[in-house]
Amino acid sequence: MIYNKSMKSNNIFKNIPKQLSEEIFEDIISQDGIKIERIISKGQSTPKGKWYDQDTSEWVIIMKGEAVISFEDSDDVKLGLGDYLNIPAHTKHRVSSTDESQETIWLAVHY
Amino acid sequence: MIYNKSMKSNNIFKNIPKQLSEEIFEDIISQDGIKIERIISKGQSTPKGKWYDQDTSEWVIIMKGEAVISFEDSDDVKLGLGDYLNIPAHTKHRVSSTDESQETIWLAVHY
Repeated sequence: MIYNKSMKSNNIFKNIPKQLSEEIFEDIISQDGIKIERIISKGQSTPKGKWYDQDTSEWVIIMKGEAVISFEDSDDVKLGLGDYLNIPAHTKHRVSSTDESQETIWLAVHY
Repeated sequence: MIYNKSMKSNNIFKNIPKQLSEEIFEDIISQDGIKIERIISKGQSTPKGKWYDQDTSEWVIIMKGEAVISFEDSDDVKLGLGDYLNIPAHTKHRVSSTDESQETIWLAVHY
């Protein structure tokens, strides 16, 4: 691969920390009005009774692994490879499970 | 998979048209200040001498396949599975090749 300093690619599957006792959140792009983020999970879930209630909408896609997202007001959604989901702002949700046997790599766009 | 009408997942690898004589651009999310798009290519490239010169920045990741992006002012960047690249607004670029043997599926975020 050829690139110069100004136009450098990176890979979503690389540089996965071995230590995943906690979920890892890494900004890829972050500026006014948008954040693109890599999230790495391995068996973690949102603590029982805790809901994410976000001021921005979040679009997520599963790059690797599996997860289940639960909602306060609708049914669970199971996500596997390539599945994507839009979570509008203030839609209360939690991650009820992630794959314990491998890393789950999420790409999230907050907007 | 369980979901209700309000929280419905979709899959980036599904519903690939068989007819790919031209590249396909599909909006996933489109609203003020952001567009998330699926692009499907199969051997296509930007016509010689044509450069994309966009008012917005574009972040792309390769979900499947391979492509080469060329720039007016810097070296080519070859992208494979999971590779991502940020193209700032008004960075003149073109797609100089995409995989001819399979579909290349891009996820693009314009912001």
